[in-house]
Amino acid sequence: MTTDTPRADVDDPQLAAALDEFRAAIGAEHVATDLETRHEFSDTYSPRSWTEYLPPAVLQPATTEEVQEIVRIASRHGVELWANGQGRNNGYGGSAPAHAGTVVVNLRRMNRILEVNDEFSYVVVEPGVSFNDMYDYTQANGHTLWVDTPDIGWGSLVGNALEHGFGYTAHGDRANSVCGMEIVLPDGSLLRTGMGAMTDNPSWHLSKRGFGPMLDSLFMQSNFGIVTKMGLWCMPQPEYYITGWVTLEDDEHLPALLDAVRPLMIDRTIMNYPSVFTASGALAVVGKRTDFFPGDGPIPFEVSKAIVAQIPNLGMWNMRFAVYGKENTVDAQFDNIKAALSVVPGVEVIGTKIRGDEIDPESLDQSGKVQAGIPDMQLLNTSSWAGGVGGHIGFSTVLPLTGRDGRRITDLVRPASEAAGFDYIGGFLLRERSMMHVTLMVYDTEDEPAAARARDLCANLVGTAAKMGYGEYRAHPSNMDNVQSTFDYNDHAMRRFYERLKDAIDPAGILAPGKQGIWPRRLRDGSAD
Amino acid sequence: MTTDTPRADVDDPQLAAALDEFRAAIGAEHVATDLETRHEFSDTYSPRSWTEYLPPAVLQPATTEEVQEIVRIASRHGVELWANGQGRNNGYGGSAPAHAGTVVVNLRRMNRILEVNDEFSYVVVEPGVSFNDMYDYTQANGHTLWVDTPDIGWGSLVGNALEHGFGYTAHGDRANSVCGMEIVLPDGSLLRTGMGAMTDNPSWHLSKRGFGPMLDSLFMQSNFGIVTKMGLWCMPQPEYYITGWVTLEDDEHLPALLDAVRPLMIDRTIMNYPSVFTASGALAVVGKRTDFFPGDGPIPFEVSKAIVAQIPNLGMWNMRFAVYGKENTVDAQFDNIKAALSVVPGVEVIGTKIRGDEIDPESLDQSGKVQAGIPDMQLLNTSSWAGGVGGHIGFSTVLPLTGRDGRRITDLVRPASEAAGFDYIGGFLLRERSMMHVTLMVYDTEDEPAAARARDLCANLVGTAAKMGYGEYRAHPSNMDNVQSTFDYNDHAMRRFYERLKDAIDPAGILAPGKQGIWPRRLRDGSAD
Repeated sequence: MTTDTPRADVDDPQLAAALDEFRAAIGAEHVATDLETRHEFSDTYSPRSWTEYLPPAVLQPATTEEVQEIVRIASRHGVELWANGQGRNNGYGGSAPAHAGTVVVNLRRMNRILEVNDEFSYVVVEPGVSFNDMYDYTQANGHTLWVDTPDIGWGSLVGNALEHGFGYTAHGDRANSVCGMEIVLPDGSLLRTGMGAMTDNPSWHLSKRGFGPMLDSLFMQSNFGIVTKMGLWCMPQPEYYITGWVTLEDDEHLPALLDAVRPLMIDRTIMNYPSVFTASGALAVVGKRTDFFPGDGPIPFEVSKAIVAQIPNLGMWNMRFAVYGKENTVDAQFDNIKAALSVVPGVEVIGTKIRGDEIDPESLDQSGKVQAGIPDMQLLNTSSWAGGVGGHIGFSTVLPLTGRDGRRITDLVRPASEAAGFDYIGGFLLRERSMMHVTLMVYDTEDEPAAARARDLCANLVGTAAKMGYGEYRAHPSNMDNVQSTFDYNDHAMRRFYERLKDAIDPAGILAPGKQGIWPRRLRDGSAD
Repeated sequence: MTTDTPRADVDDPQLAAALDEFRAAIGAEHVATDLETRHEFSDTYSPRSWTEYLPPAVLQPATTEEVQEIVRIASRHGVELWANGQGRNNGYGGSAPAHAGTVVVNLRRMNRILEVNDEFSYVVVEPGVSFNDMYDYTQANGHTLWVDTPDIGWGSLVGNALEHGFGYTAHGDRANSVCGMEIVLPDGSLLRTGMGAMTDNPSWHLSKRGFGPMLDSLFMQSNFGIVTKMGLWCMPQPEYYITGWVTLEDDEHLPALLDAVRPLMIDRTIMNYPSVFTASGALAVVGKRTDFFPGDGPIPFEVSKAIVAQIPNLGMWNMRFAVYGKENTVDAQFDNIKAALSVVPGVEVIGTKIRGDEIDPESLDQSGKVQAGIPDMQLLNTSSWAGGVGGHIGFSTVLPLTGRDGRRITDLVRPASEAAGFDYIGGFLLRERSMMHVTLMVYDTEDEPAAARARDLCANLVGTAAKMGYGEYRAHPSNMDNVQSTFDYNDHAMRRFYERLKDAIDPAGILAPGKQGIWPRRLRDGSAD
């Protein structure tokens, strides 16, 4: 895709000059060029010898003004910048920029929690605030609202929202819970969206739209600006919470389960964003594959069944869900869900009802925690499934929420994964009308052939899935152009439109070239200028 | 704001040449230049002698291809186009373009209902489909889903959604229920958003995001393209529906009511988008002011109180709301709502429970209908409140959902309206965390001084409201620049960003110049090219 010679080296005179100015602007101690830091802010789930995405430097500004100054300096020197919050982005490239030579701007030091509002149930944060930080803060300060969290709590609220990330409370569709942003544009100027575009308007984080087109979504999964502030809607602590757990004895009834759940999602009887996952997904949280199976290669299906039969409350497929509210409503909703799912053969539905103000995280399993907005780190274990220095790459497809589509994607991904030597660790993140099928290809990052097979497998699955009508929701940098190319309607009209916006908003093309397959003019194929 | 000489006349040679080509492209019978049609597609709520927004011609294409051809022709001749669905837009200028000389492209003939999907609860429509059309179609074809409707059913689903319009079911936040669009860009090419950017992807109207930044909101309240297809999420017919009605005896307890409702909106105990409105708002639906008060000038407050005391189930303030679901849930939610509102002095809460499959529109009042997605035309009567040939202009502000803010806005708008000779007909459209205060200044359109006073009043209130921290949600063309100018953060960074997008997406500046205060380069102040 790219046609120029990347500035991958600190010896590049333009970069060297920019680094001097960066040091003057944010302090030399916050401009790292040592190999260890550069690796930390590359893709930590790739083998260390794969240096294609190793950034030449990592900047860690502490304020919006410093970000503005970095952007201005970079613009003057033609240095490319890749901004992130924590830079976790597990399985999708970590902190790694998509274009070789791009400097990472990591915003961990911008970690101010600007507002926690229990009355209106929202928070306003800088990009360096992690889900763990936020939870600790709300607990320490007696706040009652529940902030949505993904499975692993070390990521950035802002970063995760910008990548269309998901969580598991009533506000789990995180991009849809964003309300009002502040953005540093590629020229270093500040933009505030929605009602925030009026000075001191108190509805900035209360009303999703202002006057004219709403711009928030334009800065998600994009390279049009660096978001330095974001409002996120949260849920008030409910009087009662039921964390529900569904097990399915047989793989063959997965389609029936998905079809039974759909109407409960559409009418929001299930009030949160549930997950449906394989036994291997559940097992990988608590152990390594060798704990369950001594042999080589993927665990055979019949062996999985035997393992599942021995473990209480574990099915070949498992679903978690939640309801929240007054006691009379949560009881009624839980009864309704149980009745609706009873049509699925071999299904078991259990629930634990807890007062919202009496939640003891220690008494909850991982699902019980994240469905109550309590971040957790246990799921990070999944990457250790294959042993060694764990890593994984994610393949994540958007499908209609139907049993038929659920079966079609598992019939594609399971055999393909196993043929490449990986256990199928998959699951569905359910939304109102669609679902994401997420698979992790887990490997030891010191096993380069395995890492290469995982990357190839993901790349190859993209085209096959697209032919079946399934688009990706997120991708590793090595896969971004590939995924973008599957969005082919009218000769890739969407990409061409993105490119037009990119050239207008960032004419020098300094922000995150290649992100989501969006390249600035000078790096596009066949572009002369 | 504008600096050129508008092409307001069909004698303009460029326009004449374009009209010939429009006739060849879509048929001469669909290109109107007669005065009657031009008036019909101007602002019908302005006095007929005010010709500032009278379009020189009205085009009514029937297909997307015809829209593409119109855009290409207009582009070649530098003719400006203002597209709308039905062109109703009551109180915000009707079908009138913001810039004199702009040709109206009315899409009433693009009236295909492309899909009604009960399984996933969504519809896909062209811009000419009205809420009335849609309801008739779903009823005639045995569909069960409920399509959200605004108060008056003659408008376009697409047009209303694009203007950030509101309805009263669970999907009343219409812009948030949009999922997937097809758009004719200013160069005549087609763009599909989200998963629709992949050919034949079945999740186009199921998943709100694709790969890269979601673009849907960019085409709402904007002039960046002409939307020719839209998916809209709907609600499934619930097993039970309770239409609730709240009356408040005293005006002074309005703040207590709003504060009591807020938590019920945030946690979605109230499942729809309720309205809170004055007695005058309720009375204007069923009669004229002279039916209730023989005197001149606004009805005095004490007289209003006396009228209200005589009418059953009418308060000085009234709120409608709804819950939907299985019988056990709607009963529980209604009980919870009643209990929560009982803290408000002088409040009465009643509800009517109906089976979703046994709804008889004839048995429901206007609120009972629209909260069940049944369009109605009764509210159109409001414009006849002042007698004569009714018209009104809307002043609509976004506020935090608090009693304090509710009181501040009524304390501003009521006396200002009355001082200008208008009854205060106001209300609040409630959202999760914010509300819109909507006022109608109703006049006889043959009474030019009254119409002028109404327009001036709206214009003057904008700046005052902005100083109080309140931005407008929508505006009459005569007020768009004024409203946009109140979004002043960082030297109007949002407008400057809109302008940058406008110049990139529509370099010739032919689409809806001035809409929402967004002008193309050649029409901006101080612009030389």
